[in-house]
Amino acid sequence: MAYQAAPLENLIEQLERLPSIGHKSASRLAFHLLRAPAEEAQALVEAITTARETIRECEVCCNLADSTRCPICSADGRDRHTVCVVEDPQDVGAFERTREYHGLYHVLHGTISPMEGIGPDKLRIRELLYRVANEDITEVIMATNPTVEGEATAMYIGKLLAPFNIRITRLAYGIPVGGDLEYADEITLRRSLEGRSALG
Amino acid sequence: MAYQAAPLENLIEQLERLPSIGHKSASRLAFHLLRAPAEEAQALVEAITTARETIRECEVCCNLADSTRCPICSADGRDRHTVCVVEDPQDVGAFERTREYHGLYHVLHGTISPMEGIGPDKLRIRELLYRVANEDITEVIMATNPTVEGEATAMYIGKLLAPFNIRITRLAYGIPVGGDLEYADEITLRRSLEGRSALG
Repeated sequence: MAYQAAPLENLIEQLERLPSIGHKSASRLAFHLLRAPAEEAQALVEAITTARETIRECEVCCNLADSTRCPICSADGRDRHTVCVVEDPQDVGAFERTREYHGLYHVLHGTISPMEGIGPDKLRIRELLYRVANEDITEVIMATNPTVEGEATAMYIGKLLAPFNIRITRLAYGIPVGGDLEYADEITLRRSLEGRSALG
Repeated sequence: MAYQAAPLENLIEQLERLPSIGHKSASRLAFHLLRAPAEEAQALVEAITTARETIRECEVCCNLADSTRCPICSADGRDRHTVCVVEDPQDVGAFERTREYHGLYHVLHGTISPMEGIGPDKLRIRELLYRVANEDITEVIMATNPTVEGEATAMYIGKLLAPFNIRITRLAYGIPVGGDLEYADEITLRRSLEGRSALG
């Protein structure tokens, strides 16, 4: 027998479909949404609806945007000669938070993954080639994740960009700041040796 | 400078208001909600709206319900002489999952907490007294949490119910099943000694 009212059961079920939300969390969120002031629940509902209706891809870099261009492509004072190629829109935030990078981005929306049936045509690679061919770009930084798929995608795009007269770079590999050498895996350590630089 | 589109920023902000959802989780949920099939996002929005519109308190036990009576109060075959008094609707689920309890419930919707300005009048105590006076109840099990507030609330209600000719009981205290004696706190251990029972 269901011991909870059907609309409550359904709300828990819908919340459980969200990533990393299990049954207990979904239940806690559902009770919160029922007990919260009406404005709070309404604000969440509207935020979901508005985001779904207005968010699209930037016509230049394919980052998420609410108009034809994303906030970064339409900002003044960015270095328009450097493009950082990332897998997902979330990665843009990671670089922006460093406050070190002032160039533009290009969001692929995934990596090449034959296992999951994702070929190069499913990514925004065509759009990247168009930019390199038509914009005044001098460097493309491949900033895909340091995974097998990320590497393969960076290599693949690197080859496509080779005919253009631009610098193509990859993020440095090495030991993470604050990490412990004892626990670093061999591949990371080997890469950090290969990439060593003069001290001071 | 905001590097994300405003509707996306707003969605993350609204998700961050949910309990135990930090900025990173909110961000991940927001990107999921944008990428998920339209039906999934729509189903969540409708589940929130419908739950907010239809869920109210059961007129008998104050549990959450989508009609005048909750599924338990309107079910056949429950023992209508026993009432288990709990703090929150979630606690009903905890007892139902034991499959051991077949009586009814009464949901207080909180505990007496002078620190937070919650007096007895803010809880559904009046409704409980009405039930004990008018229904054929023979036992009230005080199942508030084993916290200072839960205890105080149980004691307070126990005194109010004393004039009625019914059994008033409290959940047993003791060591949790599967727990380790070495790590049990002294109060729990003392209570488990006091409440010891004959073996076999």
